[in-house]
Amino acid sequence: MTEFRIIFQPGGTSQQVVSGSTIMEAMNQAGLEADFPCGGMGKCGECRVKVIEGLGEPTTNDRFRLSMQELDEGIRLACITEIQEDMVVEILNPKKLQHNILISSEDRPFYIETHLRKFFVEVSQPSLIEHKSDWQRLEETLVGLCDVKNLKAPLSLLRQLPDTIREAKNKLTTVLHDSKIIGLEPGDTSATMLGMAFDIGTTTIVGYLMDLNSGKELEVVSTLNPQAQYGGDVISRITYAGKQEKGLASLHKAVTDAINKLIGEAVDRAGASRTSIYEISIAANTTMHHLFLGINPQSIGVSPYVSVANQGLVVDASELGLEINGAGQVFVLPNIAGFVGADTTAVLLATELDQREDVTLILDIGTNGEIVLGSRRKMVACSAAAGPAFEGAQITNGMRGAVGAIDHITFGDNLEFTIIGEGRPAGICGSALLDGVAGLVELGMINKRGKFLRPDQLTYPKSLGFKDRLIEYDGAWAFLLADAGETLHGRPIMITQNDIRELQLAKGAIAAGVRILMESSDIQSDDIKEVLLAGAFGNYLNPHSACVIGLIPRELENKIRMIGNAAGTGAKIALLSAGEFSRADEIAAAVSFIELGSYSRFNIIFAENTYFKLD
Amino acid sequence: MTEFRIIFQPGGTSQQVVSGSTIMEAMNQAGLEADFPCGGMGKCGECRVKVIEGLGEPTTNDRFRLSMQELDEGIRLACITEIQEDMVVEILNPKKLQHNILISSEDRPFYIETHLRKFFVEVSQPSLIEHKSDWQRLEETLVGLCDVKNLKAPLSLLRQLPDTIREAKNKLTTVLHDSKIIGLEPGDTSATMLGMAFDIGTTTIVGYLMDLNSGKELEVVSTLNPQAQYGGDVISRITYAGKQEKGLASLHKAVTDAINKLIGEAVDRAGASRTSIYEISIAANTTMHHLFLGINPQSIGVSPYVSVANQGLVVDASELGLEINGAGQVFVLPNIAGFVGADTTAVLLATELDQREDVTLILDIGTNGEIVLGSRRKMVACSAAAGPAFEGAQITNGMRGAVGAIDHITFGDNLEFTIIGEGRPAGICGSALLDGVAGLVELGMINKRGKFLRPDQLTYPKSLGFKDRLIEYDGAWAFLLADAGETLHGRPIMITQNDIRELQLAKGAIAAGVRILMESSDIQSDDIKEVLLAGAFGNYLNPHSACVIGLIPRELENKIRMIGNAAGTGAKIALLSAGEFSRADEIAAAVSFIELGSYSRFNIIFAENTYFKLD
Repeated sequence: MTEFRIIFQPGGTSQQVVSGSTIMEAMNQAGLEADFPCGGMGKCGECRVKVIEGLGEPTTNDRFRLSMQELDEGIRLACITEIQEDMVVEILNPKKLQHNILISSEDRPFYIETHLRKFFVEVSQPSLIEHKSDWQRLEETLVGLCDVKNLKAPLSLLRQLPDTIREAKNKLTTVLHDSKIIGLEPGDTSATMLGMAFDIGTTTIVGYLMDLNSGKELEVVSTLNPQAQYGGDVISRITYAGKQEKGLASLHKAVTDAINKLIGEAVDRAGASRTSIYEISIAANTTMHHLFLGINPQSIGVSPYVSVANQGLVVDASELGLEINGAGQVFVLPNIAGFVGADTTAVLLATELDQREDVTLILDIGTNGEIVLGSRRKMVACSAAAGPAFEGAQITNGMRGAVGAIDHITFGDNLEFTIIGEGRPAGICGSALLDGVAGLVELGMINKRGKFLRPDQLTYPKSLGFKDRLIEYDGAWAFLLADAGETLHGRPIMITQNDIRELQLAKGAIAAGVRILMESSDIQSDDIKEVLLAGAFGNYLNPHSACVIGLIPRELENKIRMIGNAAGTGAKIALLSAGEFSRADEIAAAVSFIELGSYSRFNIIFAENTYFKLD
Repeated sequence: MTEFRIIFQPGGTSQQVVSGSTIMEAMNQAGLEADFPCGGMGKCGECRVKVIEGLGEPTTNDRFRLSMQELDEGIRLACITEIQEDMVVEILNPKKLQHNILISSEDRPFYIETHLRKFFVEVSQPSLIEHKSDWQRLEETLVGLCDVKNLKAPLSLLRQLPDTIREAKNKLTTVLHDSKIIGLEPGDTSATMLGMAFDIGTTTIVGYLMDLNSGKELEVVSTLNPQAQYGGDVISRITYAGKQEKGLASLHKAVTDAINKLIGEAVDRAGASRTSIYEISIAANTTMHHLFLGINPQSIGVSPYVSVANQGLVVDASELGLEINGAGQVFVLPNIAGFVGADTTAVLLATELDQREDVTLILDIGTNGEIVLGSRRKMVACSAAAGPAFEGAQITNGMRGAVGAIDHITFGDNLEFTIIGEGRPAGICGSALLDGVAGLVELGMINKRGKFLRPDQLTYPKSLGFKDRLIEYDGAWAFLLADAGETLHGRPIMITQNDIRELQLAKGAIAAGVRILMESSDIQSDDIKEVLLAGAFGNYLNPHSACVIGLIPRELENKIRMIGNAAGTGAKIALLSAGEFSRADEIAAAVSFIELGSYSRFNIIFAENTYFKLD
């Protein structure tokens, strides 16, 4: 009896089998987990593998189930392909063998498994003998093509059915969501399938136009959140939603209008159309989540700060007034708690904290800092109210990280700073405030409590070169970054005693959150293997400065990694993979939320963490 | 060891048990089938029984699971009630222990199992420690009460949730459809649950207001179908829907407006409110079905006469503009074919043809006659285009079965007739036409081909007494029923040669349909055990007359039974029982439809059946 060896990728599992065995049999013998929905009859086409070595001619069944392109690429059905020589075979999806394409995000690979699926069908013509209804004829054709048994359709689709089927001369493309036909299009449109992932922030909304077939990102668009006109932070928007007549409706409309504009911009740039968009995924903080859905967020704003609904939701795009394909569906990621929203869930989905062996600390720092600590064994999260200092607000010469902002400062032989865009500085943004205060700490120019030393008290040799920059301002000392003649508006730019106090409150809140998560999980700094910084500010700050001022524990400095807009990445994953979207609910449910206000020692820990540690 | 005897109703099964056994244990010992979803832990409250004799004090668990009213009525939980004396116990649902009540329709018993279910819940108060979302708290409470695991809710409900939960001080009633919460009401409204079953006919719409808890019929309301303004029969309405701009919309609105009016009338009479109505069920012929749903019925009107959708449908009442509770759902029975609609399915559901051992012929006679022949082994159906003669249209002195119509005629020593209402006759309706022509056949006053004999040709002795009633009209003979002086309008009322021709076409079509169903199923008259007449005309006609003229085969005369508005009964069953509603899909699918036009010998059989058989 001739035997051959078959090697499975990824993983490299090897199996010896007798000639004529099928790849499926070899997989089973090798103990590789796989689903064969049709029982290995070559009918469902779900057990696609890619033959890398030892590719034979396709069988009739292969030709029937696979496209020409797939056949050329070496794709075969594991259940009917016989082994007649040594082979190397790639299992395309070891868990669930579907039409999946591997996508590499910054953090991890995943398989495309769109929520909506398209099937081109040619419906039979009725006759006096075969007098089946339009729906019956469509259903019979479709059931033969897909793995869904009990097809359903909403009334709106049945209303379209008779005209579409006749105008399209029986050739049409159906759009399926689970077992429901939600769209009908004349002709074969199965190649057109776009989606958009959105990260709705309090300040900024970012949208990613994605090709759902290839998983490719086509365009990125963004805009300021127009809800800002009703209040800059979540609390003022919650107040507006509750106090003003139609407040909630205005806020809801503002964000959906903005998203509709972004969709228009993205499809224009890509040369596509709104109706090509079938899926939208949403990551947002809990308040933005509620306002986007038109759910009253009042309860988030008052103790005990509970949200109305956290679970992942699927909503018709039309119900939200989103202008995409009529069949379009919106997939809203789940929240974790009132102040730890779906954006954090998206970060966890992107980073797969729930799968990690190593304890990891994840920080998404803004006006509210969301902090998650843990591993696959346990995850705890909290929200720390940092206030607006990191965004440059309530800082004497503070501004957002926009053109003209000093964004980074270094204390070398001379003071040096970089400016966003070209020209003269107009103010400082949060990352520069961090750098500046960190420098002052390292130069011994401020004490443990954040108070400026007088010029005559300075002792560090290096600090003496910056002594002249200490100026008096508003009855206290301040550190001059640029004098009036150097700035855009002709006024000096400095870091004042008050700015340092604001930063202390902000960093104290975040640092206290980190400490409390560590304390309540009994995790020490040494146990933490990696610190991931997500979000715009997290990716802009200088990690060294963050550690010097104690925003992040100093001993973790060399474990810091910036992971970009991980919430956006998570939203993209949720858009492209129905499995990952539903897993997000499990992730969100697995996170234990700690309300800092209910933690008995919060005030003490917060006060301690407003201080600076001097070396 | 003391033993007691427990007798179970209905059925009277008796069981001897040791003191302290539970009723559940006694049921198990007696071999009575029952479900205990929570495993007999006293948790689910599903195993309600009614203690008729030997009622003891309720336990704490009884008090928690059962309402005061239930406790007073002797309702207990079988799984935890101990037997301490001889007892008589009524099992409330032997198959599936739910809130089921046996309903006796004319034809058969069935159990109430409403589509929508109400649960009163008291949601916990959130705290800084238990900071679950509104939804999570609601879900946790509800899952403990019902057997549903993965509760879902539409966005519209989540939007109501925060305000309702707070205004109701955490005490509210949820309305469930399968696993979906579709309604929220402050306080305990679980006792209020009404529904309406509708039979939408081409001419008449009938509605039944039902109490969904008790299954009782509260009111019956009816109206003429206002679509009549756009055409009297289905073909003219199909034409109107297709040819006129907004034709479909007008027809759709006409019927939903009429139903809204009927709903208002029914709840007014019952002293209830529209918002107490949660379920609507619909039986209708296929064209009425499509127009009610706003689906274009064009394809029904042209060969091969296919419908757009036949399957049973569940639609939000709001989507159809029906003014009932916001959570209201509409359950539309399935059609069988283009001209055999959901009204026929409703008749089959009411008569349970699909369960019958004996071959049965069911006729619903109108402008279109729907005919079903078969038993649980096989069912065949057809639609016969009888034309309007049975409804009194295109008959010389014809009229609907309204006040003033001669509705029955007997040929005794003298001619006698009855009139609907009081006063003088205004015309004849279909049932009188049947009686009149049957009499003329029996008197030998018309020949096999339906032609009047001249007065001098009459030979039957009995006919001679009516000889004077033969008059000349429009160049042919006619039979005078009432002369000008006797009638309401001062014109004679007669049966003309033309009227007989019209009736021959009508009865020929129905009779041909019956013959073809028998022929194609290889069923002889002797095989048919029962003939069921459904619908208004079927319940008004004289079966003997129908058999004399050959509308129904003569040999079946003594097997005829009238079953009232069986379509309405079927709609009521579908309203009250989710299981029966879903079984309707199986029934509809099990019926083989025969398109008479495609039957090769139709023309010959039709022509034969226009004749009369003379004894």
